[in-house]
Amino acid sequence: MHTYSSKLLEQAVNELARLPGIGRKTALRMALHLLKRPQAEVEALGNAIITMRNHVIYCRECKNISDQELCGICSDHKRDQSLVCVVEDVRDVMAIENTGQYNGLYHVLGGIISPMEGIGPQDLTMDALFSRVERGTVKEVILALPTTIEGDTTNFFLYRKLTAYPVTLSAIARGISIGDELEHTDKITLGRSILNRTPYELLITRK
Amino acid sequence: MHTYSSKLLEQAVNELARLPGIGRKTALRMALHLLKRPQAEVEALGNAIITMRNHVIYCRECKNISDQELCGICSDHKRDQSLVCVVEDVRDVMAIENTGQYNGLYHVLGGIISPMEGIGPQDLTMDALFSRVERGTVKEVILALPTTIEGDTTNFFLYRKLTAYPVTLSAIARGISIGDELEHTDKITLGRSILNRTPYELLITRK
Repeated sequence: MHTYSSKLLEQAVNELARLPGIGRKTALRMALHLLKRPQAEVEALGNAIITMRNHVIYCRECKNISDQELCGICSDHKRDQSLVCVVEDVRDVMAIENTGQYNGLYHVLGGIISPMEGIGPQDLTMDALFSRVERGTVKEVILALPTTIEGDTTNFFLYRKLTAYPVTLSAIARGISIGDELEHTDKITLGRSILNRTPYELLITRK
Repeated sequence: MHTYSSKLLEQAVNELARLPGIGRKTALRMALHLLKRPQAEVEALGNAIITMRNHVIYCRECKNISDQELCGICSDHKRDQSLVCVVEDVRDVMAIENTGQYNGLYHVLGGIISPMEGIGPQDLTMDALFSRVERGTVKEVILALPTTIEGDTTNFFLYRKLTAYPVTLSAIARGISIGDELEHTDKITLGRSILNRTPYELLITRK
């Protein structure tokens, strides 16, 4: 539809428009913004993404993005090596770490099973998880995948595989957010919060 | 707030988050997306923006982004060299070209006067416009800047400077969009559409 006055501009727009959630209009706005910035800044951006892509390391244990062969969490001996929390990607690790409430390890799947997007178990880091469990130090695997059809499918797949090992399998609690009112909570969440109710004693004895 | 598990990831996120309209969350999503793409694709993106920034040319006449010293529009002798339409940036040129209704030349200011953002006349390509007008081939200058305080300020600045030359100064028509209903039009646009009404004869004689 649009004709660009410069091939160089057009190529930059084409590449930027491949980024997730970026349409051609936004890509053009980005390209024009970059043209106004100092050369050094644009080179810093271009080189940062290339360097990241070509030199990033995934932790040999948990498969999280890392700068070392064994990431900072896996190599931290103060952490509980018997607990492994299974998450979709590094953002979930960051979110849980931010709570300051979890002292175990992680396993980053790198996605979830999604037939729609052509992602099967073989595209994820599941085998690495099974080998970790097989080694015997892991006592409990906590599933923290999204509550979507894809998340449930992945949970069930992991459940089927992990029952072969002597590990406890649990899932993070789904319920009403702290401070939320019952009347404004959706039916499914409210229903689940009753089914999966927590013994009151647990709440008052917890420090 | 967030601690990244990799410096390379953090640097890429920092650079991506400098793009206009991109917050840290979106930047992280983009970086994780890039990590899943082939190396060649990420290199294509990084190099496209660096090459664009370092090698783009601005047309010596109209200051539009170009691949040649004189852009395709300025060097097209079928176009009316006596008409110059003043616009903010290359997007406006693309939008007007898409109408297929304009056969004159352009002048790309590269922005508009904005004291808030520290952009003054010296940061724009105004001197190049004045030299073009001074050479005498331009008969009419059409102002097509946005209807904002900044646009109006820039228009007035150009008006003050250009009255020194024997050129007609005009502005693109502001009015009610074709197909829009009067009752849904804002007051200012509707008011202007009455003040700046077009002689009916012009409408029926226009091909």
